[in-house]
Amino acid sequence: MKHAIQGVHCAAATPVTADGKPNLPLYVDHCRKLMDEGCHGIAMLGTTGEANSFGLHDRMALLDGTIEGGLAAEVLLPGTSAPSVADTVELTRHAVRAGVKGVVLLPPYYYKGVSDEGLYRFYSRVIEGVGQDFRMVFYHIPQVTQIPISHDLIERLMQAFPGIVVGIKDSSGDLDNMKAMCDRFPDLGVLAGADPLMLPVLKMGGAGCITATSNLRSDALRVVWEGWNDPAKSDEVAAAQDRINAWRTLSNKYVQLPTVKAMLARSRGDTGWLMPQPPLVELAEAERAEIWAEMEQLGG
Amino acid sequence: MKHAIQGVHCAAATPVTADGKPNLPLYVDHCRKLMDEGCHGIAMLGTTGEANSFGLHDRMALLDGTIEGGLAAEVLLPGTSAPSVADTVELTRHAVRAGVKGVVLLPPYYYKGVSDEGLYRFYSRVIEGVGQDFRMVFYHIPQVTQIPISHDLIERLMQAFPGIVVGIKDSSGDLDNMKAMCDRFPDLGVLAGADPLMLPVLKMGGAGCITATSNLRSDALRVVWEGWNDPAKSDEVAAAQDRINAWRTLSNKYVQLPTVKAMLARSRGDTGWLMPQPPLVELAEAERAEIWAEMEQLGG
Repeated sequence: MKHAIQGVHCAAATPVTADGKPNLPLYVDHCRKLMDEGCHGIAMLGTTGEANSFGLHDRMALLDGTIEGGLAAEVLLPGTSAPSVADTVELTRHAVRAGVKGVVLLPPYYYKGVSDEGLYRFYSRVIEGVGQDFRMVFYHIPQVTQIPISHDLIERLMQAFPGIVVGIKDSSGDLDNMKAMCDRFPDLGVLAGADPLMLPVLKMGGAGCITATSNLRSDALRVVWEGWNDPAKSDEVAAAQDRINAWRTLSNKYVQLPTVKAMLARSRGDTGWLMPQPPLVELAEAERAEIWAEMEQLGG
Repeated sequence: MKHAIQGVHCAAATPVTADGKPNLPLYVDHCRKLMDEGCHGIAMLGTTGEANSFGLHDRMALLDGTIEGGLAAEVLLPGTSAPSVADTVELTRHAVRAGVKGVVLLPPYYYKGVSDEGLYRFYSRVIEGVGQDFRMVFYHIPQVTQIPISHDLIERLMQAFPGIVVGIKDSSGDLDNMKAMCDRFPDLGVLAGADPLMLPVLKMGGAGCITATSNLRSDALRVVWEGWNDPAKSDEVAAAQDRINAWRTLSNKYVQLPTVKAMLARSRGDTGWLMPQPPLVELAEAERAEIWAEMEQLGG
């Protein structure tokens, strides 16, 4: 085991009840199936999981309920970010005390154009505020946050908090950025945030993935993970990566997250999956029907 | 009284203690002085007030403490936004029950590229979730949120919630946008979010302002408010607007919010004002000294 956090992690979508709460039974069922299908862990409550569209209490209750529902805390990687140090500490401390594998942390995303010094203070106060050791994965998704995580910031925080700052989820889609981090930080687990990059990132020394398409095709991602370094499996691995890519392309046909939810409604056989939280909106009926027809053609 | 919420409102800065909490005594003292200096109301916990850099509990405690400290709830316009409906409802309900004049609400600011339908659902669920009537002011600051408030969205929400959706703080700096809203929505109080636009917005039918420079020069903003429509006072009003603009220009010399705080440290005579919350960073010592010297020249 090269990295503290490695393998196939699903950025699990979160089903919603009519009153805007997480649908716990449906969620736990999904997480159990994801583990059976090939995931090493569940990166719950990320961007695909609509973390920031749930209240703090609901987020903590979902984590507790998932563990009570039978998922081992040691496979969970919740997103515990909020725009303030105080709320991020509260969510992170709760998760750490629940025994999670680690947490995934966005930069604070309200103010734009902030300095690395300001981001350093944010992350260091969160880490110190939690008050005990834990594992932290940066979440680099500048197309959403508008706040990139620089390599100098990573270096400074890794030096200040060795053993805590252990990984980064890179959702920028920028393979050069992932290569540069793999080269500069051998101890940092670089996790592809976009499914088509799983195989390329593993080949450059990365630690695996946290992705949205794993809600649908974690089986194929596991095939890539198991075989990427085995010449005898190169055809099987390439076919699995192609299969992942086809599902990913379909999930991007309309707004990604509502499309993933529409796809889950079919693959899990439950229309309780269809609705996202505001400000996201479900697919139109005709769009959903089209997506389902294309899933049929993909053989899933 | 033409609009439900009108006049000079200060986007009050929030002093911070060493442990990252609001400094309540210093804050209450500031708010009292702002009212004495000419403000009609305090738009607490907005962008200048670093609302999103404080935890939910700290935000509610600051509102309670401000009222206990002697500010009338009827002059307070707190920002009660969070990225989720649930947390926004919690903050808004708390403020409404405290008897505030109204609340200022950002759009949800995590996801980008969201639809008006999604924003409509967000705002309407918040309004319905609060469970009693209150006054709401939109907060249009697309350079920060990346989520503009469209006129069609305003119209739809005003029609659905008459008497609740009463105003908009426009911090875009786009005077054409403010003019278009004044013309299309006579019942909507358009509040300038940038100090140099106070006089122009009043002349086009606007309701006043919510601004950062009023932390420093609410006296001059009040002069503009009292005299903008009186030909006999046009020189006095123009001079006041010029004075506001000079202070605003100085506050934008470095990153605005830390600069406003550095200026407050001098005008209120308390270095407890200097520190912002992460991810913002205080001015360097040389920058602060320069700002103070320029304040001296401005005669304040």
